[in-house]
Amino acid sequence: MTHLGEEEIADLAVGCTVLAGGGGGDPRIGHLMALNMVREHGPVPVIDVTEVPDDGLVISAGMIGAPTVMVEKIPSGAEGPVIRSTIEQQLGVKAHAMMPLEMGGLNGVLPVAWASATGLPLVDGDLMGRAFPEIQMCTPHLYDIPAWPCVMVDERSQAIIFEPRDNVWLEKLARNAVSTLGGCACAGLYPMTGAQARGPVIRGTVSTAVRIGRTVRTAREDPFGALDAEVGLYPLITGKVIDVDRRTAGGFVRGSAVIEGIEGDRGRLVRIEFQNENLVALEDGEALATVPDIITLLDKHTAYGIVTEHIRYGQRVVVGVIPSPAPWRTPRGLEVVGPRAFGYDVDYVPVEETHARVG
Amino acid sequence: MTHLGEEEIADLAVGCTVLAGGGGGDPRIGHLMALNMVREHGPVPVIDVTEVPDDGLVISAGMIGAPTVMVEKIPSGAEGPVIRSTIEQQLGVKAHAMMPLEMGGLNGVLPVAWASATGLPLVDGDLMGRAFPEIQMCTPHLYDIPAWPCVMVDERSQAIIFEPRDNVWLEKLARNAVSTLGGCACAGLYPMTGAQARGPVIRGTVSTAVRIGRTVRTAREDPFGALDAEVGLYPLITGKVIDVDRRTAGGFVRGSAVIEGIEGDRGRLVRIEFQNENLVALEDGEALATVPDIITLLDKHTAYGIVTEHIRYGQRVVVGVIPSPAPWRTPRGLEVVGPRAFGYDVDYVPVEETHARVG
Repeated sequence: MTHLGEEEIADLAVGCTVLAGGGGGDPRIGHLMALNMVREHGPVPVIDVTEVPDDGLVISAGMIGAPTVMVEKIPSGAEGPVIRSTIEQQLGVKAHAMMPLEMGGLNGVLPVAWASATGLPLVDGDLMGRAFPEIQMCTPHLYDIPAWPCVMVDERSQAIIFEPRDNVWLEKLARNAVSTLGGCACAGLYPMTGAQARGPVIRGTVSTAVRIGRTVRTAREDPFGALDAEVGLYPLITGKVIDVDRRTAGGFVRGSAVIEGIEGDRGRLVRIEFQNENLVALEDGEALATVPDIITLLDKHTAYGIVTEHIRYGQRVVVGVIPSPAPWRTPRGLEVVGPRAFGYDVDYVPVEETHARVG
Repeated sequence: MTHLGEEEIADLAVGCTVLAGGGGGDPRIGHLMALNMVREHGPVPVIDVTEVPDDGLVISAGMIGAPTVMVEKIPSGAEGPVIRSTIEQQLGVKAHAMMPLEMGGLNGVLPVAWASATGLPLVDGDLMGRAFPEIQMCTPHLYDIPAWPCVMVDERSQAIIFEPRDNVWLEKLARNAVSTLGGCACAGLYPMTGAQARGPVIRGTVSTAVRIGRTVRTAREDPFGALDAEVGLYPLITGKVIDVDRRTAGGFVRGSAVIEGIEGDRGRLVRIEFQNENLVALEDGEALATVPDIITLLDKHTAYGIVTEHIRYGQRVVVGVIPSPAPWRTPRGLEVVGPRAFGYDVDYVPVEETHARVG
C-alpha cells in the first residue's frame, strides 16, 4: 500500500478498532476528518520507516485522555499543524513524516487527517501495535527514548509543551493537563529521527489495520474465520452484555463489563475490566486473558470491534483475543504493559497457550 | 539604589513580607539563596524599567503554588537559568533583565538569586506592587499583555511551557500543573519588551521594600510609627491569634485566622480570610478592609510581617492595612483583584476612607 485514499481510510477505521483492545476512541470522528482532508488534498502517501532518512524527523501523534469524552469533545482540525510546527520549533528541524501514536480507534485515523493537513507522509507503523492508555506504554520507552519534547494542543489551539524528567513523569503531567483541558486533547510526542525510529516502531500496522478492516467489511459468510486468517483470533466467550460500569475521571475511563454466555457458552460469566483499553478478562476470579494480549469485544454478527465507550447492555458479542505484538512479550515489555503494570497480581500467559483459534 | 548586596537583600526579605499581604511565601529560603548567589557573583545591579531598551526583553519570575508547600519543597537553585533559557528559546531573543513577579515574601527575594545566577540585572519594580494568588492578577493583564510564553520549572528541572488562549486559561493550566508537581513550582511569565513593560510595571517597589525592611529592622522604639511614615499604615486591631484554619489544596492555601482584641481593642473579634494572600478582614459580618488594599498581620513588638503559613495560635499581632497600589483601584483593576474577584459580594472601599493612620 502506497497511499491512503477514501476506501483505505474506511478500512483503517474498522481495522484499527479491532486491533485497539477496546481503546483509542470511537473512530468515526477521525474517519470523517481524514475523509475531508483527502478529498481536499488527495490520498496520503504511506512510507515504511526504513524510507525515512537517518536524520529525518518522525512525529507520533494521537489523542490523549478519556475516549468517553472524545465522543463529544471533538478536535477543531487545526491541531495537526500546531503539533507539527511546535515540535519543529522546539527541535529546530523540519519534520519528515507523521505516524500514529497507537493503532486504535480514533487514533488510528486521526493522524491520517493530520498528515494530510500538514502535507507529510504517514509512516506505516505505530508505537504500540494496538492501543494502551498511558504515554510510557510505547515501544520507544523500552529503548529509553524520551517522549519529549511533547506538545499537547486542544481544540482552542492552546499548546502546552512538556520537557519532563522521564516518560513516567510526562504521563503524570500530561494526564493532569488533559483533565484541566476537559478530559481529552491532541498530542505530538516521541519525536524520533529515522535512525532512532527503526528500532522501536512496530512496522506495517497501518497496512495490517487496513487489511483487517477490508476483511471484516467484505466478509459475507464468516467474518470471524476471515479475521482469524488475517490476525489469529482466540475467542473467549460468545455472549450478551448484561452489565456495564464506566467512570470517566482523571483523564481515563475506567470500569468493567460483564458478558453472560449464550449458545454453547450458556451458564458462563466473563468480566472485562478496562482503563481506556480492556486489561483483563476474568471468569470465576481467574484471568482468561490479560494485557498485553489484545482483548476486543467484537459484534457477534459483523466482527466489528466495539470500543469501551460503546459497550451497551444487551449487545451480542464475541470476546476475542489477538496475540500481543512481540515487543510487549519481552520481560521489559511486560514490566511496562503486563498485568502488574495495571495492578493485577497475575502472571501474563500468552493466549496461544490457553485458548484455541476460531473454528 | 543601584545594587542589591547582602544588607539590601536582608532588608528586602523583611520589607517585601510587610508588602505581601500575607502571601508570597516565607522569605527565608529565598533570602539564603540570594545571599549565596551574591557572595559568589557580587551585588546584583538594579535598574529602572526606563533603562531597559525599547526592544530589551524583561522576564518576570517567581514561585507559584501554595506557600505552605514552599516552606518544605525548596527550589534546587537551577530554576533561574532554565527560566531564562527557555523563554529566550521560545521567543528567539536574549533577555535584558529579570524582575520579581510580585513583591511579597519569598517571591521578593528569589528573583534576586535568579538575576545573579543568570547574570542579568533586576528591574526595580514588579507586576503587583504586593502579592496576589493568581496569574491574571498582574498589571500587564490590565493592558491585555499575554502572560505567555510562560515556563514552569520544578526542582528536578522539569519544564512545562504554556501557550494558552488567554491569561485566565493560563492560570487554570499552570495551577493544575503546580498541583501535579507537588504544590509549588517556579515560573517565568509575562515576558515583555522594555517598551511594553513601561506601562504596566509598578516602579520602584524593590527599593520601597528595601526601605521598609530597613525601617522595620532598625526602628528601636516605635516600628509602627516608622512604618507608617514610610508607607501609610492603617491599623485595624491589636490582638491575639485565637484560631487558625489552613487548608492546602488545588495549588493554594485557603483558610482564615481569628484575632481577639487586646488592650484598647478588648472585646473585639476580627476574622481574616485568605487565599495565599489575606483577602478580607471581617468584624461582626462586615468588611473592615478588603483586597486590593494590603492586609498584613504584623508582629506586635517588631512590626515584621507574618506570612499566612506562619500564623500561630497565641501570636500578638497588629492587623495593618497599606493602601493598594493605584492600578488596582481602577474599575478594571477592581474587576481583576477586587473583593468580587474572590467571591465576596461587597464593594471595595479604600482603607483611607474608613480608618485612621497609626498614632
